[in-house]
Amino acid sequence: MEMLTCLFCRKNFSLDIFSPFCPVCREPLFVLPLRKEEGRPIRHNHSFPLEKYASFLPLEEIDASLSLGEGGTPLLPLAKLGGRMNIPLLYAKNEAQNPTGSFKDRGTVLAVQKALSLGFGSIGTVSTGNMAASTAAYGAKAGIETFVLLKEGTSKTSLESAGIYGPSLITVQGDYGELFFRSMEIGKEMGIYFMNSSDPFRIEGYKVTAYEIFDQLDGQAPDYVFVPVSAGGHLLGLMRAFEDLEEEGLIAKYPVFVGIQAEGCAPLVRAYEADQLRYERLKKTWTIAHAISNPAPPAGNAVLRMIHDHQGVLLSVSDEEMLAAQKMLATDEGLFCQPESAATLAGLIRLVSSKAFEQRDSVVLVLTGSGLKTPHILESFPLKTSQVSLEGLEERIKNLDGIKE
Amino acid sequence: MEMLTCLFCRKNFSLDIFSPFCPVCREPLFVLPLRKEEGRPIRHNHSFPLEKYASFLPLEEIDASLSLGEGGTPLLPLAKLGGRMNIPLLYAKNEAQNPTGSFKDRGTVLAVQKALSLGFGSIGTVSTGNMAASTAAYGAKAGIETFVLLKEGTSKTSLESAGIYGPSLITVQGDYGELFFRSMEIGKEMGIYFMNSSDPFRIEGYKVTAYEIFDQLDGQAPDYVFVPVSAGGHLLGLMRAFEDLEEEGLIAKYPVFVGIQAEGCAPLVRAYEADQLRYERLKKTWTIAHAISNPAPPAGNAVLRMIHDHQGVLLSVSDEEMLAAQKMLATDEGLFCQPESAATLAGLIRLVSSKAFEQRDSVVLVLTGSGLKTPHILESFPLKTSQVSLEGLEERIKNLDGIKE
Repeated sequence: MEMLTCLFCRKNFSLDIFSPFCPVCREPLFVLPLRKEEGRPIRHNHSFPLEKYASFLPLEEIDASLSLGEGGTPLLPLAKLGGRMNIPLLYAKNEAQNPTGSFKDRGTVLAVQKALSLGFGSIGTVSTGNMAASTAAYGAKAGIETFVLLKEGTSKTSLESAGIYGPSLITVQGDYGELFFRSMEIGKEMGIYFMNSSDPFRIEGYKVTAYEIFDQLDGQAPDYVFVPVSAGGHLLGLMRAFEDLEEEGLIAKYPVFVGIQAEGCAPLVRAYEADQLRYERLKKTWTIAHAISNPAPPAGNAVLRMIHDHQGVLLSVSDEEMLAAQKMLATDEGLFCQPESAATLAGLIRLVSSKAFEQRDSVVLVLTGSGLKTPHILESFPLKTSQVSLEGLEERIKNLDGIKE
Repeated sequence: MEMLTCLFCRKNFSLDIFSPFCPVCREPLFVLPLRKEEGRPIRHNHSFPLEKYASFLPLEEIDASLSLGEGGTPLLPLAKLGGRMNIPLLYAKNEAQNPTGSFKDRGTVLAVQKALSLGFGSIGTVSTGNMAASTAAYGAKAGIETFVLLKEGTSKTSLESAGIYGPSLITVQGDYGELFFRSMEIGKEMGIYFMNSSDPFRIEGYKVTAYEIFDQLDGQAPDYVFVPVSAGGHLLGLMRAFEDLEEEGLIAKYPVFVGIQAEGCAPLVRAYEADQLRYERLKKTWTIAHAISNPAPPAGNAVLRMIHDHQGVLLSVSDEEMLAAQKMLATDEGLFCQPESAATLAGLIRLVSSKAFEQRDSVVLVLTGSGLKTPHILESFPLKTSQVSLEGLEERIKNLDGIKE
């Protein structure tokens, strides 16, 4: 049986899937790696990411039939943006190319594997968007009852893009933070595995992204990794993976992690800037970046601890900076991501203005979700179209700005 | 210099990028494969698809910096749907996981490579949706001026999802079929490479999908391949790729290709059913499946010829069948695709009712685009949500239908 471990008191506990929190510290618990003594080889002869990195993952067996083809996303050089900022080794890890269009699929596939191996017949999640669609999709693939709990007022787009997979969709009035914990109590009573944002197995799934980055950089760690931070699970998964690689002696240097929040919802950045290791939950938030708008992230203190232990950075960016960065990624690099993802570029632009990067520094921006998931954001950008008749087309093209003749 | 060839008169012509049509037959020309005499190895030590299959592609050099991470899409077993239809070897090739969410990226990346190697400083396309976004994205990545011509009345979503990449967007009044040819005349005059639906290099890019299917089936051809058919380029690319594999002696049997059109726009199915090798263009079309609603596909006669030569099948399905299939793919298999993509499953369901499949037949459905690209379609499905307070949540979950206790 798996053991879980607390980042704070360093105690280990046996797995309670319905309450993966430290009874002493109340903080979320993480999976304690097994099989350390044998070493953890990367199986390069596998193309299915969970199998390739199986020795780092808490699964006894991997059931490929539960996969939707997640992972194996590209690491793309951003030549134009990198050139402009004098960071030639700038890359985007494009998690938008996952099956449901976001990084959540990495965590969901692992948690669903775990759910079935533990004998669960139903799963659930508490989410406002990306995680709802992801959990509903993998629940459908696995053929198990899936409960998606959303807060009242969730957008129709979010409801519909989870609803298409046929889960039980429930919108719940009341405090969203309470709903997170209440869902797990109900899960315990009814035998439903609620794989929420800080679920320890979900977080293990996010680790695979980091192993891929390491492989895509030919067995090196990048110098910097930029990740949007909401509930904190994604950042923690990536950071834990580089700990694994360090423990195995595979990397010489641990990357500098830069977690980005939205100015309108930056509880962890506030704590970080005040040199606190515990954050205070926010009462009010305002940002267009709903996917990273969590005023009381359950794993928030764990993020602060990890960032502290590894000399990382947390910073916030404005909605305007995110939108400008979203447009830049599209027009310069052909990548259309959510504003939440573009927050990474906005964060880099901020950091570049105050900190000297070296020419040889490799920098990875983790783009977390597809711009197709937030079509309403497109209204923020003026749409320039030209209208013309077939007869007038040639003349119009000749007169457009920018045409190279 | 590349030679192009006519499927009809079997004559070869030197490349004219502005008019890749047979001067004798007026039909679209295809790239004549080079380097046949040396054999064409698959380079399994490459992960970048264009490099892996380079020996089958008309590129002297491959510039990886123009890639957005297209290809390498999963081939997923559809266990539940296959089980229900008694086709255990049923698969989906999920092209929705390409960078802009559709198969078009496969063709665009190859055509853009060609454009730059031929020295073009501007490119363009005539499209109503997927191809517009794809061409704009790759044009942005390459840093070249990109013209996207759309017909008047194109939806705001389509305009915006191409517009984000910053191309010159022009909506044109007048006949859409004429616009196709007019764009290439203007291109010739102004030095713009219009990579439209039947562009010979775009079609070569689609071949890569077929090579991947062959590799993912451990070096075998599937028995059946289902593909939606609009302009015809995609189907032709896939069929030409299996011709390559047959010529190289790599497959024992050529697959049965099943091209699917929408009942409301099925000019090729009409001709096929009447045993004609030339289709008649339609005056009126009606279907929700805009991505496969082309009343006068430029490569339509080539499709009829290829389907005839390889004993393929063309059939049409109704909008209702497509929507039902779209819902099935989501609820049974966790795949959310465009209704146009689901047309493949609808076609299979039709064919299963009239034709006996063998248990050992392998069947591949090519899912061409992400459901996130056509959010308005979600309104076709009733959204069942349940609303409740935090206090009443447990009771509500207990009373939901289908919960396994």
